[in-house]
Amino acid sequence: MVTLAVDAMGGDHGPRITVPAVLLALSARQDLRVLLFGRQQDLAAAFDPSAHPQSDRLLLVHADEVVGMAESPSVALRSKKQSSMRLMLDALDAGQVDGCVSAGNTGALMAISRHVLKMSDGIERPAIVSALPRPDGRHTFVLDLGANVGCDSEQLHQFARMGRAVARVLDGLPDPRIALLNIGSEDSKGNDQVKLAQELIRADDQLNYVGFVEGTDLFGDRADVVVCDGFVGNVALKTVEGLARFILAEIRATFASDWRGRLLAWLIRPYWRRIEARINPGHYNGAALIGLRGVVVKSHGNAGEAEFLQALLLAARYAEKKLPEQIEQEL
Amino acid sequence: MVTLAVDAMGGDHGPRITVPAVLLALSARQDLRVLLFGRQQDLAAAFDPSAHPQSDRLLLVHADEVVGMAESPSVALRSKKQSSMRLMLDALDAGQVDGCVSAGNTGALMAISRHVLKMSDGIERPAIVSALPRPDGRHTFVLDLGANVGCDSEQLHQFARMGRAVARVLDGLPDPRIALLNIGSEDSKGNDQVKLAQELIRADDQLNYVGFVEGTDLFGDRADVVVCDGFVGNVALKTVEGLARFILAEIRATFASDWRGRLLAWLIRPYWRRIEARINPGHYNGAALIGLRGVVVKSHGNAGEAEFLQALLLAARYAEKKLPEQIEQEL
Repeated sequence: MVTLAVDAMGGDHGPRITVPAVLLALSARQDLRVLLFGRQQDLAAAFDPSAHPQSDRLLLVHADEVVGMAESPSVALRSKKQSSMRLMLDALDAGQVDGCVSAGNTGALMAISRHVLKMSDGIERPAIVSALPRPDGRHTFVLDLGANVGCDSEQLHQFARMGRAVARVLDGLPDPRIALLNIGSEDSKGNDQVKLAQELIRADDQLNYVGFVEGTDLFGDRADVVVCDGFVGNVALKTVEGLARFILAEIRATFASDWRGRLLAWLIRPYWRRIEARINPGHYNGAALIGLRGVVVKSHGNAGEAEFLQALLLAARYAEKKLPEQIEQEL
Repeated sequence: MVTLAVDAMGGDHGPRITVPAVLLALSARQDLRVLLFGRQQDLAAAFDPSAHPQSDRLLLVHADEVVGMAESPSVALRSKKQSSMRLMLDALDAGQVDGCVSAGNTGALMAISRHVLKMSDGIERPAIVSALPRPDGRHTFVLDLGANVGCDSEQLHQFARMGRAVARVLDGLPDPRIALLNIGSEDSKGNDQVKLAQELIRADDQLNYVGFVEGTDLFGDRADVVVCDGFVGNVALKTVEGLARFILAEIRATFASDWRGRLLAWLIRPYWRRIEARINPGHYNGAALIGLRGVVVKSHGNAGEAEFLQALLLAARYAEKKLPEQIEQEL
């Protein structure tokens, strides 16, 4: 069995999305249990236990408070000790669950996670990591995707070491290729931060460093792990989401423009489904906060049911793999 | 007539790509003239004048030297005074041509442009600007895309003012909406650089500032001009290119996987061509270096013929619009 704690109140839509997604996850995985944290009245409104046979693996836990999406992380940390987010992390810290999922305020999730779970030895700051698809069917792990608005070179070095561990644990790569994201691949390119980080990473014998890569290389096969600061990584990730949705919408609109197109769109449905499964950002929802002593997965704030489900399944896999312990061992 | 100076030696492929692209441009626009700068022997090898009736509008100009793609900008500026890039810019400065195009070393192009052409009054640093497509058929102008590895808040403010001018001149928008690229839309988000830039831009009555936007909004319609520092912008732009090519390749591979798919791919060709025209990054090749006293367009270094052609046509349009003079007037 895998047990997850879930913040039902997080995200732009709250229980309206998180509750149905949790029920889908319980149907999809018979070995999954969920502790769902939220305001009782909101949970009750979104959930009818009689209609859901799998609800014996679901426990609703009342939480008086909610961390707002725009709330300051430090205020949330100090004053929201009965929030769904805080109680979820307390349950993980107490060993009652194997991992956590929230679509809530990223800054608050990070601050409270650091406070409750603590950092792994030798890691100063958590990073958010996610896997981007590649033409060869494998992944490129990218970090940091927004846990930190600014990182010094030493932190980028730590991210490289954590990224190596993640690629080894999750994709079974014996010696993942590590790269730094820059605006050119030549050594002369970039700012002082990436140049200094390159020196530190190059000097680290444990890391198979392959040099600077550019944004285009995120979808190539030059590297298995791409390291960047959280500002750059967040912009890149959200640009990916925006462009992928734009392209899918453009394709749909082009076929919908006349009856012949609509007929062809119907004929190509099986192919289109396979294409969407590869490129729809919703299928990649869920990013891990790593460097912490516990599995914490952040879902996109505006995730729908199917997307929040992906984040739940991701957290279950990371919990099974005991990702934080494995990262600590690797480091 | 519009006359362009073209650096035949720039880019990953040099005259093998630039010469055929120039011939295509001369066919496409009967009112275009080109001065093509490069090493005589390389130009001669790529060009057979007898086969090209439009060659009466093409003048080959010998340039002894070439600026290397990885060469230091300061070295290129000091020691390559007979390079194709330098002579091209000298011709623009002397008023012999209306605009310039190079696929060469971006840093060198910027350094030599600044030295030869000088900056417009009140602008400290050039910026690279390009237009991204939007669902509503209009564009979002994004700058800086890599002219500067780091920018202070005052420079971001200048970019906002230049971006407003570009959107007014090129898209005829009376009062373009200006935004700053950040990792969240709330005022509390981001680093000191963007927060301070927001104060400066908000305080500027001439600018219709709409707040922070995220990477997803580059393809939405929240803003007409998105301002960011060159490191972030370059990563975002190259991520866009990489993802767009990845998606196009995934779609082609999915349809090519069996005979039924190949048949369907043949049937949907007219729709596919329209889709590709919208989303293939090659159709958007060419970005203007603005803030300079002259039209300078940078092509992607690895552009093919059709892509370099786009950069040439873009430069011709910007030269006709007298973009630098118009930006100066706007400022």
